[in-house]
Amino acid sequence: METELSTALGVEHAIFGFTPFPAVAAALTRAGGFGVLGAVRYTAPDDLRRDLDWMEKHTGGKPYGLDVVMPAKPAEVPGDRSLTEADAEAMIPDGHRRFVDGILARHDVPGLPDGEASGWRITGWMEQVARRQLDVAFDYPIRLLANALGSPPADVVDRAHERGVRVAALAGSARHARHHADAGIDVVVAQGYEAGGHTGEIATMVLTPEVVDAVAPLPVLAAGGIGSGRQIAAALALGAQGVWLGSLWLTATEADLHSRALTAKLLAAGSGDTVRSRALTGKPARQLRTAWTDAWDDPAGPGPLPMPLQGLLVAEAVSRIQRHEVAPLLGTPVGQIVGRMTSERSVRQLVDELTREFETAVDRVNRIAGRDR
Amino acid sequence: METELSTALGVEHAIFGFTPFPAVAAALTRAGGFGVLGAVRYTAPDDLRRDLDWMEKHTGGKPYGLDVVMPAKPAEVPGDRSLTEADAEAMIPDGHRRFVDGILARHDVPGLPDGEASGWRITGWMEQVARRQLDVAFDYPIRLLANALGSPPADVVDRAHERGVRVAALAGSARHARHHADAGIDVVVAQGYEAGGHTGEIATMVLTPEVVDAVAPLPVLAAGGIGSGRQIAAALALGAQGVWLGSLWLTATEADLHSRALTAKLLAAGSGDTVRSRALTGKPARQLRTAWTDAWDDPAGPGPLPMPLQGLLVAEAVSRIQRHEVAPLLGTPVGQIVGRMTSERSVRQLVDELTREFETAVDRVNRIAGRDR
Repeated sequence: METELSTALGVEHAIFGFTPFPAVAAALTRAGGFGVLGAVRYTAPDDLRRDLDWMEKHTGGKPYGLDVVMPAKPAEVPGDRSLTEADAEAMIPDGHRRFVDGILARHDVPGLPDGEASGWRITGWMEQVARRQLDVAFDYPIRLLANALGSPPADVVDRAHERGVRVAALAGSARHARHHADAGIDVVVAQGYEAGGHTGEIATMVLTPEVVDAVAPLPVLAAGGIGSGRQIAAALALGAQGVWLGSLWLTATEADLHSRALTAKLLAAGSGDTVRSRALTGKPARQLRTAWTDAWDDPAGPGPLPMPLQGLLVAEAVSRIQRHEVAPLLGTPVGQIVGRMTSERSVRQLVDELTREFETAVDRVNRIAGRDR
Repeated sequence: METELSTALGVEHAIFGFTPFPAVAAALTRAGGFGVLGAVRYTAPDDLRRDLDWMEKHTGGKPYGLDVVMPAKPAEVPGDRSLTEADAEAMIPDGHRRFVDGILARHDVPGLPDGEASGWRITGWMEQVARRQLDVAFDYPIRLLANALGSPPADVVDRAHERGVRVAALAGSARHARHHADAGIDVVVAQGYEAGGHTGEIATMVLTPEVVDAVAPLPVLAAGGIGSGRQIAAALALGAQGVWLGSLWLTATEADLHSRALTAKLLAAGSGDTVRSRALTGKPARQLRTAWTDAWDDPAGPGPLPMPLQGLLVAEAVSRIQRHEVAPLLGTPVGQIVGRMTSERSVRQLVDELTREFETAVDRVNRIAGRDR
């Protein structure tokens, strides 16, 4: 499964995998795909350095990438300085804090043990944090820098290009994609409605060819609804130069969700058990539907705050829910392909299945097209 | 483009086209596809007979089908009799009628000319009307009877099978599809989120393989997001035995929308200009986003009534809007591929483009799979 992009990056299969787990990213790279480590959870630069050191040891010189969540323009507050965490905290209404407390109380969610910090507190979206991540990342031979939140700032694109690092950015519409192309991005990830995490309204089947045509000859990766070899063949037929998978790895044996209850929920969920909700970050993101998303999506409630306030508001609550595995509230970003994630397999097994089913799907299309005669 | 199903039905291309226009259905059949005439608008059996006579004259013995909207069980009212139009009318709250009047008044929508009946009044969903349609249809050599609203009643399935007519039913989930299979249906149309008209939440990329696996070995047609040869190749890679296209024909030269303003709106719309709304029928149906859908989807309004009440409530209003081409309110069911419908072409041209692009997409996938070496 070779495209111009996979050849240029030196990988065997045009399968790109986004994951917060170094063990998954490294395993995908070793299996002939391209592992992309999500950096948003690394608040301390040393933690990122530790995990990139680990990646270096476990990828045997094969290529991998890093995914950051960096706004093109930092949020600003009066006085021309960029928004700090304290500024954002001060903007959260008391009524919303009480609403969170109410959900936790209704479900008897205990507090965090003394001295245990909220592990879910995500600050990587803040420009100053993302830039510290990049300072670390550029010390390593990453081959791709992906940004999940718009085009990265121009100086970051330049810095990546100086080091021979390709820059990718996610897009939910052809307009977004053209904006990325204008900003000098090298690879567009077209993320369809059915994807896990932040998504727009346009489904992968429609979005992929639209983005391919909008930014040609730039390469496009298809994301959203892809978790099998048939879906890979479909994405490539739509014009993508590869696929970008995130959800599928969540139930890989190398993944560490820190919660057997959450893994069990993912394995049991059907394709209809996700919802596109602002409950977690303030922007629409597909995730498991839970009592938590129901509470935030209830028109009778106060509704979610905009990004980044919602993420700060809910950080400790999410940590408590995960720490104590409170089943009705326990969720995670995941796409509609969760219905296909019914057993735990190694990344290597998953890649073998993807490539084998891809070949079968190509055989089938060739028969239909009369190419086997 | 031949599958077991297209071969069994005797068509050259596994391209099925749903359309309310006999001229489009006949042109698709003549072009080597399979035209399916939508019957829901035929209230008078003689009108359907006239148009099926016309189809017979213009399809040259090639196969075509009919699409009805028949509930598996007729809606019942107390007294064990099925719901009549008058029963339904009596159930509509006055507040909702005033809300319709308010929208029309705000947009200065004139009434219908004296003596002109509401052309949009759709009663084909009522069991007694659908059964009269079938009495007519079975006099003609239709090859496929599709039902847009669940499995048809068992006696209708039997009657079709006795005449050698295959029965198809639309499904938005694997569970629906299995229900159809249990009801003796021969072909499942898996209709994804991005489709025009009634849709569920699961996108075509995820839904198609899920339904294929759920009802195997029954053949599945993929619907939703398909309007180009690349998308056909993708749908076949996902395991479909053909594609079911509805939106694409709306801007065919043979289509007659009775409104140049509406055609112009369709040609100008992008993939992000549709909305899944209950504004037209009471069930979620994808359509152009308009001031009409905005009014019904506004949380400050009364919201749509359930099917079939909403359809009866809005029938005259929709006819007035269409008759007078009141642009801000003018809409139609259409899928996200509306963004690809940018010029008016004949059905023959459209089919030529679909099959040509399909071949190119297959070439591309073969190159990626290393099959050209």
